[in-house]
Amino acid sequence: MPVRVVGFDGDDTLWHSETRFHVTQGEFRDLLSRHVTGVDVDARLAEMEMKNLSIYGYGVKSFTLSMLETAIELTEARLPATDLDVILGWGKRMLMEPTELLDGVEEALQGLDGRYDMLLITKGDLFDQESKLARSGLGDLFLGVEILSEKNAETYGAVFRRRGIDPTDFVMVGNSLRSDVVPVVALGGRAVHIPYEVTWQHEQVPEESLPKSGWWRLPAIRELGGLLESLDGPGRVLGVT
Amino acid sequence: MPVRVVGFDGDDTLWHSETRFHVTQGEFRDLLSRHVTGVDVDARLAEMEMKNLSIYGYGVKSFTLSMLETAIELTEARLPATDLDVILGWGKRMLMEPTELLDGVEEALQGLDGRYDMLLITKGDLFDQESKLARSGLGDLFLGVEILSEKNAETYGAVFRRRGIDPTDFVMVGNSLRSDVVPVVALGGRAVHIPYEVTWQHEQVPEESLPKSGWWRLPAIRELGGLLESLDGPGRVLGVT
Repeated sequence: MPVRVVGFDGDDTLWHSETRFHVTQGEFRDLLSRHVTGVDVDARLAEMEMKNLSIYGYGVKSFTLSMLETAIELTEARLPATDLDVILGWGKRMLMEPTELLDGVEEALQGLDGRYDMLLITKGDLFDQESKLARSGLGDLFLGVEILSEKNAETYGAVFRRRGIDPTDFVMVGNSLRSDVVPVVALGGRAVHIPYEVTWQHEQVPEESLPKSGWWRLPAIRELGGLLESLDGPGRVLGVT
Repeated sequence: MPVRVVGFDGDDTLWHSETRFHVTQGEFRDLLSRHVTGVDVDARLAEMEMKNLSIYGYGVKSFTLSMLETAIELTEARLPATDLDVILGWGKRMLMEPTELLDGVEEALQGLDGRYDMLLITKGDLFDQESKLARSGLGDLFLGVEILSEKNAETYGAVFRRRGIDPTDFVMVGNSLRSDVVPVVALGGRAVHIPYEVTWQHEQVPEESLPKSGWWRLPAIRELGGLLESLDGPGRVLGVT
């Protein structure tokens, strides 16, 4: 079946994101270890993020607010405001960092330019994602940008309707099985999974809930052009699953 | 010229927003008055919000982060973490409050249903705005929802292109001259200004920069149906400017 539209996730597919959260989280752990001992700071922060997800949604601002709340809670409000100011500063740093593209992204996208309609379909904070895209230098390659508060069958379905996309013409490319593969395949689309070096726990999916077909895994985005070409062709055998 | 598509702003046009910021800001002023005196807290917070706008964007999470930073800065980090926890709580309360519709909104929109394509075009935090819309009960009345990080000629133009809207068929309804009237009229569309009881300073526009025509002012949304009907008709004289 020929491919007409290719959707790309942003964070950890086109540009680095999760490693930055990891770096900040390490600093957060160090800061709190000066006030409390014997506490699994990472676990408590992850719990706080999940508890706050329905109020704050995704993104750096939400992460910053959850770090502040965790720090106050774990120290029973004993930590000084100067430390909270440091945490505020980490949030700003994350929001202002240059967008660092993953290896091979620019070449891969340029190789597809003109062959497919390319969309950026990402989730998270609207302002932060637009700002990252602007700093990425990739903006002109995309026919459109969709920033969703959550990626699931309902929100992908709305994008397909709004843009007149037939799911059978569509391939989604991303690092998250949960957000980029499962819902798209459920709607009759296809997907390419390109794992990132780190996966946020929240994005993990149990193996048995993965679709049996309709998606492929690639080690790096530079192999995407070849895979898409083979999907276009009449039933060529692929060296990937 | 007949009207085909009507865009509605959300905050302070369909539902109350700015009064809530005012309430929280009053509490913030009281809290800080226990630590510092002789400081114009409102002015300092407004400065902080403007300084942070290019990093955080609009919305309650941004406002909360700016309150925290202002509180730490004004007290030279002398305020206890318990106070910062109170500020975090205000942010959550604002995000979770029920969506309170302005008087006459439901009747006005229902009266237009079926006569025009209605869009919600709002700015701010994606997650918060979607959540407010979901709680408003108005979702089914809108053909589509556009949440923009900023409202200007560029972003309205992108909406028109994406949705195949001819600006001459379009009327925007909102409480902000800066965000709902000026950019839409500049693109050849029309606009209806319905002032809210409070206007955020950032949304003020000097009178001389207002367009001379192409927009109307109404005291309340219940008069919108009549105005739109008169715009549809062949040159009927209007009792509004």
